[in-house]
Amino acid sequence: MTAPTERFGARLSAAMSRFGPVCVGIDPHPALLASWGLSDDGDGLAQFGRIAVEAAAGHAAAVKPQSALFERHGSAGVAALAEVLRAAREAGILAILDVKRGDIGSTMTAYAQAYLADGAELAADAITLSPYLGFASLAPALDLAEATGRGVFVLALTSNPSGPEVQQARGPDGQSVAKAIAEAAGRCNRRHPPVGDVGLVVGATVGDGLARAGIDLTRLGGPILAPGFGAQGAGQGEIRRVFGPEFTTVLIASSRAILAAGPDGAHLRDAIVGMRDQLVL
Amino acid sequence: MTAPTERFGARLSAAMSRFGPVCVGIDPHPALLASWGLSDDGDGLAQFGRIAVEAAAGHAAAVKPQSALFERHGSAGVAALAEVLRAAREAGILAILDVKRGDIGSTMTAYAQAYLADGAELAADAITLSPYLGFASLAPALDLAEATGRGVFVLALTSNPSGPEVQQARGPDGQSVAKAIAEAAGRCNRRHPPVGDVGLVVGATVGDGLARAGIDLTRLGGPILAPGFGAQGAGQGEIRRVFGPEFTTVLIASSRAILAAGPDGAHLRDAIVGMRDQLVL
Repeated sequence: MTAPTERFGARLSAAMSRFGPVCVGIDPHPALLASWGLSDDGDGLAQFGRIAVEAAAGHAAAVKPQSALFERHGSAGVAALAEVLRAAREAGILAILDVKRGDIGSTMTAYAQAYLADGAELAADAITLSPYLGFASLAPALDLAEATGRGVFVLALTSNPSGPEVQQARGPDGQSVAKAIAEAAGRCNRRHPPVGDVGLVVGATVGDGLARAGIDLTRLGGPILAPGFGAQGAGQGEIRRVFGPEFTTVLIASSRAILAAGPDGAHLRDAIVGMRDQLVL
Repeated sequence: MTAPTERFGARLSAAMSRFGPVCVGIDPHPALLASWGLSDDGDGLAQFGRIAVEAAAGHAAAVKPQSALFERHGSAGVAALAEVLRAAREAGILAILDVKRGDIGSTMTAYAQAYLADGAELAADAITLSPYLGFASLAPALDLAEATGRGVFVLALTSNPSGPEVQQARGPDGQSVAKAIAEAAGRCNRRHPPVGDVGLVVGATVGDGLARAGIDLTRLGGPILAPGFGAQGAGQGEIRRVFGPEFTTVLIASSRAILAAGPDGAHLRDAIVGMRDQLVL
């Protein structure tokens, strides 16, 4: 495996310009595996992922394998995840691995080495991170991503009911937790204009949550990953309302609304292209 | 594999009564592997873990494998982690898997199935969870732990410098994020007095952080996992100062301060017993 030749932010921007904003979530839920006629084991997971990658390559900006669904099957599941990531590399489509890791010190360094190091079995183009231990605790991952041309998406504001109890809480300066995360990401991105490698995860259905959190996404200078399109309830109108002028920089992740069209490759492609057309028209 | 016959909280209490408060962190850092004469790969990780489990069984309350260090080696590392968890089951010592997972909905369910389901390759007696998406987002893990006699430790208050920016932030009611997490855990534990299965992670070096966060640990009714003893700087006096009357319910995790004595089993046991004596005298 060779290191990417360009920064992640630039590669993602180029992919979104060419293929549109859709990111295909690879979430091999047991019910989906069954409906695709695949076994709920390592082999089934790998085949599911390969089919999704093949359908997405050339039609979507990225794929986003959901690690939890692979971890369900232990080491065999993780081996399947490695195969899916390899398939994405070979197909030339960006892979954002959704792992939501977060720890401190040398433990965070180990997570970074697992997912952001050249040559790692599970190396992805970017990973998701969870900042309950504070933004600065994620530094080992940000540093390794910076060194290897990879990226991260840090959880900022999510649309699940209990998200605000943490994300909308206020620091001593009156600033929300989510805003502190967003501002810290923005500071990282200033090194690499116009689009850096430190993205945010912001739910597509947060409603006026960004305004309540005091977040100005025009200050981010990095990519935004928005889960929740389709099966989770967001439509195109809501995406535009939530993200406003930054609408065009949002990578829109959708899993079930696309994967339900499988396992036929042509049907999957139609679902991807249909969603893209619905989003960009 | 058979399901545990007793609730996790009760099993941990019994183990702590019998063996004391020490939890041996199994953190196979590259430098430690080298100093033990082991290879930095799946085989080395498995052997490292087996030696640590063997030394801890009968002398410590629990072991705490750090998933990140195993994930570094992808599927081979995860297979080694599975071996270490199996070794702990066979040795009859509780295993708390430090994975700090957190997600929502069916994804959180998948994480729960990976680590808390009977028969899962990576099933542990308890896992650590990260609540950036709010305490309620963790429900699928709490529910499965409840059903299978397992437990969880939810990150509450940590001692790294950037922890307070999230954990000490305040909700609309003036309550800190960490307190909201602690109170929610306490409510879960009221079903199973005197000690439930929903623990908290509280850093051993948080100083007056608990008081500043407004947390009253006597309301928890569940176990506390305190990393940071030894190599990370906390001594016995600090543990007593931080945890006050709850000192006796704190499971004290230490990794490097013990593991540095390896790979000789007798030396490891001496380090474990020495730490226990230092803590309980």
